[in-house]
Amino acid sequence: MNLPIIYMISESLGETAEAVIRATASQFEPENFEIVRIPYVDSVKLLEDTLQEASGQNAFVCHTLISPKLRAAFTKLAAKYSVIAVDILGPMLATVQKLSGVEPKNQPGLTHLLTKDYFRRIEAIEFAVKYDDGKSPAGLLKADIILIGVSRTSKTPLSMYLAHKGLKVANVPLIPGIAPPEELFNISPQKIIGLIVDPGKLNEIRAERLKAIGLMPGASYAKLACIAEEIEYSKAIMRRLSCRVIDVSNSAIEETAHMILEHHGKYLEMNNY
Amino acid sequence: MNLPIIYMISESLGETAEAVIRATASQFEPENFEIVRIPYVDSVKLLEDTLQEASGQNAFVCHTLISPKLRAAFTKLAAKYSVIAVDILGPMLATVQKLSGVEPKNQPGLTHLLTKDYFRRIEAIEFAVKYDDGKSPAGLLKADIILIGVSRTSKTPLSMYLAHKGLKVANVPLIPGIAPPEELFNISPQKIIGLIVDPGKLNEIRAERLKAIGLMPGASYAKLACIAEEIEYSKAIMRRLSCRVIDVSNSAIEETAHMILEHHGKYLEMNNY
Repeated sequence: MNLPIIYMISESLGETAEAVIRATASQFEPENFEIVRIPYVDSVKLLEDTLQEASGQNAFVCHTLISPKLRAAFTKLAAKYSVIAVDILGPMLATVQKLSGVEPKNQPGLTHLLTKDYFRRIEAIEFAVKYDDGKSPAGLLKADIILIGVSRTSKTPLSMYLAHKGLKVANVPLIPGIAPPEELFNISPQKIIGLIVDPGKLNEIRAERLKAIGLMPGASYAKLACIAEEIEYSKAIMRRLSCRVIDVSNSAIEETAHMILEHHGKYLEMNNY
Repeated sequence: MNLPIIYMISESLGETAEAVIRATASQFEPENFEIVRIPYVDSVKLLEDTLQEASGQNAFVCHTLISPKLRAAFTKLAAKYSVIAVDILGPMLATVQKLSGVEPKNQPGLTHLLTKDYFRRIEAIEFAVKYDDGKSPAGLLKADIILIGVSRTSKTPLSMYLAHKGLKVANVPLIPGIAPPEELFNISPQKIIGLIVDPGKLNEIRAERLKAIGLMPGASYAKLACIAEEIEYSKAIMRRLSCRVIDVSNSAIEETAHMILEHHGKYLEMNNY
């Protein structure tokens, strides 16, 4: 059997189809199929070219077509060229329309409008970069969330991930021998998240990172003891702050971020935002 | 008619369902429906509770269930409680299985594995933060992409967005009267992207940003002339570098990023990576 090909058709960037394909791909091996992306489809001609190309092969076409004209053309052409098709958005749009009694707008690219929400996210990303790594303690007072922890507890990527969700995040490294900024002790502890990690796990993660970038990790018991001491120091600070503590040892950024978003949501509720 | 409710069920974080819901929502108004997210579903009990809750209402349930046990239970329970269901991943998984002859792994959460690709993205995010705003010219030599442009041409959020895709991005502000770093002129121009923006549009964007954060924008012709001069200066540098120039006036970050990724892909191809 030939390697199957997934053709992805979208009228805009194709980010939705991309997310669905990523989830699908994770359930197979990369060598199980090939992906051909065709974003910004705006003509029946391009649709027909793609379906014609797919028709001779062990392929199927998934799409997030929105405009009624292209959707209708797609259905006809997929039948004409006997191509298997997966309509990613169709069932959702039809069901919302049915239950709400409201017609969809039928315009592609609406997720990229320069809305208030869009500017809030841009603002948040710039904030996170500006107040990364304890750069300016003044930022702590303006932040929605402050992440604290020793080096390599994923403070920076977590801050950026949360910023993409629109939260203003500052992060402060905890380093034995260097007092954390005074401001930290004047902030609602519910805004502060302490990140800890199992020393052995941290060593492992570092080793995997080194391997990933092509270097060989070296083991060192002394290093491990140092890490353990650092983490103990950070835990003492977190106890003084009475903040929420999250162990990131076994979590990907997305998972830790989810916990923080939940915590933040509850904080907002309690304070009647 | 009551406000329809979309229940979202996932065994992991629900990011895939979230992307599909976001695209669906963009085709309606926010007041057309409500969303209830139920991530980390791991039991038939929780499935049943959700479907029971949905059954009395003007609601439907969309899901990205992966494990065969929960998928089977869902189908049964949706029928039992007469709930409309949308299976987001099912058609894709079934089609890939059919065309490849390979069984899916049927394990939820596989998009969050700590893979090589995951570490590459984390590395890239840290890189982008470290080399934001011309912080260290040494970084320019290590970057995959260097963004240059005057203030407010979205260099920082673009860098972060591209970093999330795994690219190492540095950015350098162009400021009249301050010479750009020498390193810039020793780098392959194909790695450099010049960002420009229409002065009027930039003023508009700034005004919208101010409104978004609750301030009233003030207009000033002098300001506009200043911006125009700044941008002319930046264009002159871009000409000297013979780099690709992108006008970001009418594009959201995602759209500009897409152009840069395409440009970068072609560069890699030309250089036989």
